[in-house]
Amino acid sequence: MNVVFVLYEAMTALDLVGPYQVLSGLPDLRVTLAASESGPKRTDSGMIIHAECALRDAPEPDLIVVPGTGRPDVPLADAALIAWLRENGPRARWTCSVCTGALLLGAAGLLTGRRATTHWLAREALRQFGAEPAHERVVVDGNVISAAGVSAGIDMALTLLSRVSGENTARAVQLGIEYDPQPPFDSGSADAAAPQIMELATRLLSDAAAKFKPS
Amino acid sequence: MNVVFVLYEAMTALDLVGPYQVLSGLPDLRVTLAASESGPKRTDSGMIIHAECALRDAPEPDLIVVPGTGRPDVPLADAALIAWLRENGPRARWTCSVCTGALLLGAAGLLTGRRATTHWLAREALRQFGAEPAHERVVVDGNVISAAGVSAGIDMALTLLSRVSGENTARAVQLGIEYDPQPPFDSGSADAAAPQIMELATRLLSDAAAKFKPS
Repeated sequence: MNVVFVLYEAMTALDLVGPYQVLSGLPDLRVTLAASESGPKRTDSGMIIHAECALRDAPEPDLIVVPGTGRPDVPLADAALIAWLRENGPRARWTCSVCTGALLLGAAGLLTGRRATTHWLAREALRQFGAEPAHERVVVDGNVISAAGVSAGIDMALTLLSRVSGENTARAVQLGIEYDPQPPFDSGSADAAAPQIMELATRLLSDAAAKFKPS
Repeated sequence: MNVVFVLYEAMTALDLVGPYQVLSGLPDLRVTLAASESGPKRTDSGMIIHAECALRDAPEPDLIVVPGTGRPDVPLADAALIAWLRENGPRARWTCSVCTGALLLGAAGLLTGRRATTHWLAREALRQFGAEPAHERVVVDGNVISAAGVSAGIDMALTLLSRVSGENTARAVQLGIEYDPQPPFDSGSADAAAPQIMELATRLLSDAAAKFKPS
């Protein structure tokens, strides 16, 4: 089975690497990291990760995973990326997003009439694409699986893996990455966080996004 | 404050990117991705991530983060990396490891007489460095913070961040990456997983490690 991760300038590193760590290194899944053009891509926090091939040269995808970004304007202006999603998303077995990756699925017309989730700050933006924003961490609707913000991609990928390779494989991968989370604070969801923490988080995210310079 | 991440060929992508996502994009922390030599590094699952500078050119570190690998033999043979850790580890404010990154701290003499944790499969290997293996997910001893396998780097980095930038900042970052984990299975620790899942996980990890080819 072919898994294609869709990379682009300004993607969020953990949105990509969470699901990548879950889905790579398995005998039945062949993982490809692809972008509009191959080569190094600068993430929205600066780390550079390589796209090994262009989307037009990627194998026909069975599974598609689209990471999010603090700067959705950058990939939304990438016509080749959106066109590739529009063509391949509907016929893949599963098309998946992490965080604001859902906005790219939306722009490709893949969320019309579907329930989907995204980063808590971007939830209402889903409506412009005809999607119904959901509050769950992982939402399955049709062949689309969407995850909430950033770290939710790990939970999404384990859900996805259990569907394509079975629950035992997903459990073994969870153990392999020792995913027994113990956050030191209870501040990971917009429902749990205090108002001043939400304000600080919003400011930090917006300051970081403003600093990103597309190459 | 300077944060230096120590990259190398065969590192595990999520060991690096979990803490990186937590510690990057903050106004008070200047993050540097460094390796023995700068340039692209192939992770143990294939993804290529760039080291932006050589360790000898990295700023004097206040915080050091060392990711782990499925192939500890590769970095343990990197004399420049181990020497850099031996020199800088004791004088940094915090020296931190994720997963088998603890073995590199051990080889640099930083764990003698300390409690430390690592990936469940590598726990006993800590003893050769005079360390006492601990079962916790995050262990603080002296100026060393060690994390259990792979995904534990996220919990470790939030703990670290709360100590250097305060709890409110750590809580805001947790919300920013929406770290409200909801694993679909309860199989993330060696204590919780069934014996056949441990066997499968061990086989998958060892097969993946055997496939890695150093460049």
